[in-house]
Amino acid sequence: MPEAASVQATVGDSEFDRDTAVRRREPGVYDADLSAGWTIISAVNGGYLLAMLGRALADTLPHADPFTVSAHYLTASQPGPAVIRTDVVRTGRTLSTGQASLLQYDDEGREIERIRVLASYGDLGSLPDDVRTTAKPPAIPPVEQCFGPDDAPAPVPGSSAITDRLFLKLDPSTLGWALGAPSGNGEMRAWFGLADGRDPDPLSLLLAVDALPPTAFELGISGWVPTVELTVHVRCRPAPGPLRVSITTRNLAGGFLEEDAEVWDSADRLVAQSRQLARARLTG
Amino acid sequence: MPEAASVQATVGDSEFDRDTAVRRREPGVYDADLSAGWTIISAVNGGYLLAMLGRALADTLPHADPFTVSAHYLTASQPGPAVIRTDVVRTGRTLSTGQASLLQYDDEGREIERIRVLASYGDLGSLPDDVRTTAKPPAIPPVEQCFGPDDAPAPVPGSSAITDRLFLKLDPSTLGWALGAPSGNGEMRAWFGLADGRDPDPLSLLLAVDALPPTAFELGISGWVPTVELTVHVRCRPAPGPLRVSITTRNLAGGFLEEDAEVWDSADRLVAQSRQLARARLTG
Repeated sequence: MPEAASVQATVGDSEFDRDTAVRRREPGVYDADLSAGWTIISAVNGGYLLAMLGRALADTLPHADPFTVSAHYLTASQPGPAVIRTDVVRTGRTLSTGQASLLQYDDEGREIERIRVLASYGDLGSLPDDVRTTAKPPAIPPVEQCFGPDDAPAPVPGSSAITDRLFLKLDPSTLGWALGAPSGNGEMRAWFGLADGRDPDPLSLLLAVDALPPTAFELGISGWVPTVELTVHVRCRPAPGPLRVSITTRNLAGGFLEEDAEVWDSADRLVAQSRQLARARLTG
Repeated sequence: MPEAASVQATVGDSEFDRDTAVRRREPGVYDADLSAGWTIISAVNGGYLLAMLGRALADTLPHADPFTVSAHYLTASQPGPAVIRTDVVRTGRTLSTGQASLLQYDDEGREIERIRVLASYGDLGSLPDDVRTTAKPPAIPPVEQCFGPDDAPAPVPGSSAITDRLFLKLDPSTLGWALGAPSGNGEMRAWFGLADGRDPDPLSLLLAVDALPPTAFELGISGWVPTVELTVHVRCRPAPGPLRVSITTRNLAGGFLEEDAEVWDSADRLVAQSRQLARARLTG
């Protein structure tokens, strides 16, 4: 676990909660500030934005937990003011569905849509205990044998403000890119937490699936790999403690790639699964 | 390949095109008829509905091919009249994004939303040829060694009108459920085509990812496994000829499961990938 501040942050009282907070102006309209503290290669991290949208939807809908969230990323978000507009699509007994848009303002003050989301919410605590998961946790070395940005001999490409918010220790077998020797395998694995020690919860899982370096780096592709669309399934409230995130790319073709992420908690539950479609500028 | 009618159907002139047709009433409003010919266990197949929505969006947006389509299934569709309402979310040079709702009418003629979709479209033909896919086609026996509904000794659970529309030959290693001996593995594999011989295209891939029996059958779960959400990535225009579809479930837990589908064409390209979240009523 990260070296904690003298008081460990808690769910509701942490950098993540502060920076994903939304203020309800009126039903279905929330004001927000996109923090500069969650940027990666100067871009506001997509998972951070998804978590903020997820928080607004949790307020809008009668169910509190994201079950499946589908986001289409339209234009690049910038640190600064934003508004989130939500709509209820359908409410049911065990599931409700909503839609949300994140918008910012151009120089004339007009709204420009950044992201649009469809999401179905439920109550993770009410799910039966029957677990027949056949997937296995990733083979990742103990955290002491993994490496984060602070361990790098020189600033690594992609180091950005977000690395100060996260506890991220990468599997050395997915770190070749940082040493100029990408493996050629579309894989990225890491231990993951929040730097201030806040435990994970369903909303922070929306961040976790998009907070590792891109698999593209291990495929020898440098530069920005923007997300076109990201769908996350949250399957379980995560247990306290560090998460393990394992990302795989198997279909890099035609200038696009998919990243499949699995998030495992300290109780060895597969708590979230996601797939994103991203653009890769192939350079050779 | 299926025994063709004396004239093989073509893209644009086939059962699939006829039954997924939409009639533009005015910009952004399309009338449609949900055919009773695409039902599975009395429910209108979700992939058939997604293909119809995809057709409406292709008409609405400046780009013709679905790239990534995210659908949240709200209420159960019925054969009969429907309306599809579309909106342009954003148009760009290489990608455009749209939203669509499929609605039907209650006894008082009020609209009830069945499905809401967010989708980003582009031009598959303009993608560069650089293919670095590391995924491999599924290990499925030659089609002559696979079995369809017509080969079954007795009507199998789930046989429905849709089976007359499809050319479906299941891998015998994923057929145990039809013989009262489910394997216990969350897998389903089949050769797939349209019964009238129509070649695949990007829209029919939206059907293909949801047209096999549920993996739940091989997990010993019977009955309806309704889709909550389905996201499809279309990565390539499929070559003519039969497709191979391989579906995997690895996270059956808490009354929900995911189904990951891969669709491979006759040129061994991974032309589509999808993941759906579905509800499974666990019975033992």
